[in-house]
Amino acid sequence: MTALTAIKNRTSYRGTYTNETVPREALIKIMEAGLAAPSGCNKQTASLIAVDNPELLGKLRGVIGPLEPSDTAPAMICVLTQQIIAYRDRCFSVHDYSAAIENMLIAAVELGYETCWYEGRITDVDKIGRKMADVLGVPDDYELVCFLPIGVAAQPISHPEKKPFGERAWFNGFKNI
Amino acid sequence: MTALTAIKNRTSYRGTYTNETVPREALIKIMEAGLAAPSGCNKQTASLIAVDNPELLGKLRGVIGPLEPSDTAPAMICVLTQQIIAYRDRCFSVHDYSAAIENMLIAAVELGYETCWYEGRITDVDKIGRKMADVLGVPDDYELVCFLPIGVAAQPISHPEKKPFGERAWFNGFKNI
Repeated sequence: MTALTAIKNRTSYRGTYTNETVPREALIKIMEAGLAAPSGCNKQTASLIAVDNPELLGKLRGVIGPLEPSDTAPAMICVLTQQIIAYRDRCFSVHDYSAAIENMLIAAVELGYETCWYEGRITDVDKIGRKMADVLGVPDDYELVCFLPIGVAAQPISHPEKKPFGERAWFNGFKNI
Repeated sequence: MTALTAIKNRTSYRGTYTNETVPREALIKIMEAGLAAPSGCNKQTASLIAVDNPELLGKLRGVIGPLEPSDTAPAMICVLTQQIIAYRDRCFSVHDYSAAIENMLIAAVELGYETCWYEGRITDVDKIGRKMADVLGVPDDYELVCFLPIGVAAQPISHPEKKPFGERAWFNGFKNI
């Protein structure tokens, strides 16, 4: 699959997954794609933990709370970030892990899997990300900011409606089509 | 080129560019890839302006200041963001435009171009991004946060050294290889 096709086919899948497991080779390829993303001043602030142990998945789901479709995924990748200054007083950790996540979403599609970027739910006032980090033994200087369920879709894939190209992309000036 | 190959080949290119122009069709494909990225609650906070008009490129470079290698690029894509609340009181604009940028970097590689994510330089205290926005007629409720020079590399491509996989990616627990 070409990169452009994978980018176009990627969607935030919120349906159920089949019980087909995700081989370690595939999880490694997806994580390698994530780590290949650029980072501000090459600080590489993003780290990853793939979870494919059913018992551990169950514990994580216990702290995430009911999220039924994604609960059926046979694997999950958790995204960690570190606050490291890159340039003057700037830290680009959000940029870094966002680029890493996007790469993983695209890689998953190419390999035949679906996934979804879950972040707001676990970085909210409830601090679910910290509880997930505790389950995985993640120390306090790392923040767990996102998880991606990974598996084979059991339901049809859909794409949300987006604004037309001309409402968001222009040439040589603002709103100049 | 497969998505995994494009992801692996992508690098932050800081060399000079040939004088080969970038066709509109290619700029459109790259921007379509950017707009295909997910956004928090589908708020689509990122917008894009491709610049291929030489006079306008000159004006933008006048406010960016000397950046000699990238100055040779025949085109540039500027990334705009809007602060739109997505979820409770959260705005995911940085996530949204970072994912869009990453898609564009990958798409550019697939199409035979090189580019580089320039952000810190223009979002600093000097507010160069605002000056660029003024050149392009961008209103105050949009922030110009990044530009990507686009062109054909005239010099060899290199990849920065990255930490080994096992220092950033683990299975079923922190630092568990």
